[in-house]
Amino acid sequence: MTREPDIETIQAAARRIAGQVHRTPVHTSRLLNQRLGAEVHVKCECFQRAGVFKFRGASNAVLSLAEDQAVRGVATHSSGNHGQALALAAQLRGIPAHVVMPSNAPAVKRAAVEGYGAQVVECEPTLKAREDTIEEVLGRTGATMVHPYDDPLVISGQGTAALELLEQVSGLDVIVTPLGGGGLLSGTALTVAALAPEIRVVGVEPVQADDAFRSLEAGELIPSVNPQTIADGLLTSLSDRTFSIIRRHVSEVVTVSEEAIVDAMRLVWERMKVLIEPSAAVPVAALLEERLEARGQRVGIIVTGGNLDLGSIPWLAPHDS
Amino acid sequence: MTREPDIETIQAAARRIAGQVHRTPVHTSRLLNQRLGAEVHVKCECFQRAGVFKFRGASNAVLSLAEDQAVRGVATHSSGNHGQALALAAQLRGIPAHVVMPSNAPAVKRAAVEGYGAQVVECEPTLKAREDTIEEVLGRTGATMVHPYDDPLVISGQGTAALELLEQVSGLDVIVTPLGGGGLLSGTALTVAALAPEIRVVGVEPVQADDAFRSLEAGELIPSVNPQTIADGLLTSLSDRTFSIIRRHVSEVVTVSEEAIVDAMRLVWERMKVLIEPSAAVPVAALLEERLEARGQRVGIIVTGGNLDLGSIPWLAPHDS
Repeated sequence: MTREPDIETIQAAARRIAGQVHRTPVHTSRLLNQRLGAEVHVKCECFQRAGVFKFRGASNAVLSLAEDQAVRGVATHSSGNHGQALALAAQLRGIPAHVVMPSNAPAVKRAAVEGYGAQVVECEPTLKAREDTIEEVLGRTGATMVHPYDDPLVISGQGTAALELLEQVSGLDVIVTPLGGGGLLSGTALTVAALAPEIRVVGVEPVQADDAFRSLEAGELIPSVNPQTIADGLLTSLSDRTFSIIRRHVSEVVTVSEEAIVDAMRLVWERMKVLIEPSAAVPVAALLEERLEARGQRVGIIVTGGNLDLGSIPWLAPHDS
Repeated sequence: MTREPDIETIQAAARRIAGQVHRTPVHTSRLLNQRLGAEVHVKCECFQRAGVFKFRGASNAVLSLAEDQAVRGVATHSSGNHGQALALAAQLRGIPAHVVMPSNAPAVKRAAVEGYGAQVVECEPTLKAREDTIEEVLGRTGATMVHPYDDPLVISGQGTAALELLEQVSGLDVIVTPLGGGGLLSGTALTVAALAPEIRVVGVEPVQADDAFRSLEAGELIPSVNPQTIADGLLTSLSDRTFSIIRRHVSEVVTVSEEAIVDAMRLVWERMKVLIEPSAAVPVAALLEERLEARGQRVGIIVTGGNLDLGSIPWLAPHDS
């Protein structure tokens, strides 16, 4: 059984993936700081390979496989970034990847996964169909399942972003990340708890997909039911594993409005010239809406990815292109 | 009289502006390389202060002023990036800036110049009105004129981008820059001719604003008459000074279509997650359209800026926002 994630597995992940993961830069902007009333250090995971931090966890999972396991490939279900990230990690190791996607997934996302050489397996857009299909794929191929976030190796890989951020910027008061299934927030919280426990760790989710916020209030896991948000990377709910880590190590979970997410995304595009997707904008949205105490503080933000359909920009009408 | 630009004035500019100009990063993308068939190193001047390389030249001009001159301020005419850059450079020195803009300039550009604390002086959108207005401003204020490109200090400042690029990437075969008034291309060509003469320097302009291409063919300066292009930073024509430098030191000038400019801009947004403006996309467009010999080569590209109205993206219809 794989060891549960902690600072040692995160540091091991950093060594394992160093050869193929980008050490992404941290950008700052005086104009952004003025607008947000804080000193903001933006870790640009949108410049990560496959355009998203999820390549860290996928890479760690794929590189951890023994050779005899690896040759049978990896599999996952994802309509988004994890699918692309796993496809690329598998391609780099030269092994097959199978990605189960709902039949209503956007063509552009399917094309991106296939572009990295993975096999897309379509299923009906229901939870049952997804689970049946992944079972079928695993049984047929002998591939190893790599869950988008409920996987110790994936969480350890995601924790390497915070590891770098702590090396790149000193004296942070708080680190803020987006929160969907909780893989990134868990990895970040474990890293910070071990290496810089004086820094607060805050997770941000869309108010329309606020399962973590409600779960923490209730003291038990309450998954979202059919959440809708423009931050399509944050539709997933916590697992027992990520909930447990977040309860122990995260200072606070806050929620943001859809409007603030779009405003924050546009603000980062305009001021930083960095193209981030809606899910990546939620920490900035939290500062915009003053959902956390950060005024005058030194704030680290992980902007998680830059994969979006440029034919449909939230503040503009779509157009034939 | 100010000394004409050469490698010494460029190196002096680099020392002068080092404290306030960003050393911008060079990004690469495997997917972009695959698409373009070359090894492309992108110098991201869109991350420069004021969002554009022009801050280099403006900063050099402002910091070169003697104190008694400086207090009377600086002035220019610009409906675009040079106005913003000069406004910021003046603000940082704590001196006035006067920017003459045509009355039909987009509100967003006017707001950006004013945002950096400059005084905007409106004029009718004719060459005569512009010249009369700048004369009036210079006479009234005693400010120093800082031309957008026909100025030795500005050209020297722009040359510092290539200076950095040569330090950041070794073994380049060719460096490609956008070409409007010729300030950046002149500075680049002077730097490369002095330090790495084996590297070709290529300027790219929109076919719909191809005064440099035509001037080089004719052997004499032929300014554009009312050019129209989406690359609104490249509407200006060469001056005698930049034409002379470009004739002597630039390997080649090539032109690109409007369609390729938009395709190139979208490609960089999608693949690199870097937000560039149309004018910055023309070197990438030249590779897309195979307007220069670069297949398999190591290519340095200066993407010049990231200032555009995000309410109007070329491949999307505008929308109330």
